[in-house]
Amino acid sequence: MAEDAADVLVAGTVAYDTVETPFEDVQKALGGSATYFASAASLFTTTHVVSVVGGDFEMGELTFLRDRGVDLSGIEVIEDGETFHWSGEYHYDMNTRTTHATDLNVLEGFDPHIPEDARDVDQVFLANVDPELQLEILDQLEGDPFVAADTMNFWIEGKPEALKDVLARVDALLINDEEAREMADTPHLTEAMRRIQGLGPDVVVVKKGEHGCVLANGQDWFSAPAFLHADVNDPTGAGDAFAGGFLGTLAAADEMDDDALRKAAVYGTASASIVIEDFGPAQLENADRSLIEKRAKRLASFAQFPEI
Amino acid sequence: MAEDAADVLVAGTVAYDTVETPFEDVQKALGGSATYFASAASLFTTTHVVSVVGGDFEMGELTFLRDRGVDLSGIEVIEDGETFHWSGEYHYDMNTRTTHATDLNVLEGFDPHIPEDARDVDQVFLANVDPELQLEILDQLEGDPFVAADTMNFWIEGKPEALKDVLARVDALLINDEEAREMADTPHLTEAMRRIQGLGPDVVVVKKGEHGCVLANGQDWFSAPAFLHADVNDPTGAGDAFAGGFLGTLAAADEMDDDALRKAAVYGTASASIVIEDFGPAQLENADRSLIEKRAKRLASFAQFPEI
Repeated sequence: MAEDAADVLVAGTVAYDTVETPFEDVQKALGGSATYFASAASLFTTTHVVSVVGGDFEMGELTFLRDRGVDLSGIEVIEDGETFHWSGEYHYDMNTRTTHATDLNVLEGFDPHIPEDARDVDQVFLANVDPELQLEILDQLEGDPFVAADTMNFWIEGKPEALKDVLARVDALLINDEEAREMADTPHLTEAMRRIQGLGPDVVVVKKGEHGCVLANGQDWFSAPAFLHADVNDPTGAGDAFAGGFLGTLAAADEMDDDALRKAAVYGTASASIVIEDFGPAQLENADRSLIEKRAKRLASFAQFPEI
Repeated sequence: MAEDAADVLVAGTVAYDTVETPFEDVQKALGGSATYFASAASLFTTTHVVSVVGGDFEMGELTFLRDRGVDLSGIEVIEDGETFHWSGEYHYDMNTRTTHATDLNVLEGFDPHIPEDARDVDQVFLANVDPELQLEILDQLEGDPFVAADTMNFWIEGKPEALKDVLARVDALLINDEEAREMADTPHLTEAMRRIQGLGPDVVVVKKGEHGCVLANGQDWFSAPAFLHADVNDPTGAGDAFAGGFLGTLAAADEMDDDALRKAAVYGTASASIVIEDFGPAQLENADRSLIEKRAKRLASFAQFPEI
């Protein structure tokens, strides 16, 4: 972990996931956006987690994060509640999935609180939760952090006004391609990204699964491939691991310029490539910085243009 | 056109297409794989076309190719037949399409003949036609050209044995991602490409529309983004224009090494980005080498990695 890197905070879910893929089924395994984010970000810098779990949650499952210095004091435990549970199925090409169940449980009525000493962090990730919760988190921040948010079609359709308020207040939106098209109401992806920039964030990162990502930073555009040889066994958490590597890398940057953002996208991609190789965050549990560096270098070689 | 570039030959269709997109409908416009290929390849080198049309075909539609020195003497005209007609519809994201009609017409019973003086070309593209026709073309070639082929799900399912024979005899397969997965019977794209290499071609290029392309050359891998700002109005012909730019670029290469193949993929991408901006090959009719060069340079900037 870089000595001089700023701290990162994530507000999102710690969950139990039930996942079916063409290869295997897993019942109630550790998941959640904050878990995946922290699993990646903690390889880069000190990470603070704001979330909520039920009395059924085994805190021991997060020991690997605590061992890396992750601050878990922002995880509220509601003893008589049940942990958020997502259940879904990935299809043949692993790029599309069907959600079978979203049991909000303790997430309903969640009133997030950032611990006092984590309110002035420099990098914040508002993972995919109700935009009204994202606004509550924004209200608790001190200083002028770089804030990135994620969202999904459920909120784009269900809470467009609150989401608009979030977009007006964040620096970056990290979103998948289908959602970007839906949010901006156009099939042209780059046009969609331009329109989203018009709603607030200068930086828009569209995550396209095995097709890599596209980054818009003001007028600058960058396209990075996915890690070609990842052995995809469970894409769950790829987007959040991407965000963890992305913000973790930015935390060590001197300036938020194009170069720093491109580098963040590359390390985000490297982080995502690791998590999808197994169910849950297991692969990121076992990963270290040298693996991330190796993948980033391989990505650079995949994308190496000839002299034009 | 490069003075020292070798000649290129394409065997494929010259067609009338009826296309619906979310933006516009066009009836019986000039199309066909050989048309699109030649529209791009002729910006790079001398191109020979082997195809067949009916008595209804207006040869004047190909004047722009003749003006660029394209050899059209390999296009057979069957006076009492009708030209091949494809009709289809592109959906909202422009990455998926539905075929409404494929009227083979003169393509049924087509007996392709390569003109004598075009049999010893150095680069050959077997566009997406019946693999038995592709084999007939292969049998007429002299010397040891670099041969690339395209195919589609219809032949993968309908003529797997003839297709296997084609694959055993070509240097490169250019195919889209869905077809690559189907051909190799795996959802893992890079695994699919490895398996296809095992069937014959050292070079496999998977075209992914707006997601760019992936090139495998033996053990080497390259991923290039699509041209981000293309104003997509009709994706028809993008794959054939890609092939035209790809082989047209290879025709000028001193060696078939990784660098030459990466460069070919970039110029193929640039060619495809131009044709999709209008219906039919119109945009490639108006294009010149300087536009292609400009796009290739923009692609390089989209893909420019930071120092890792």
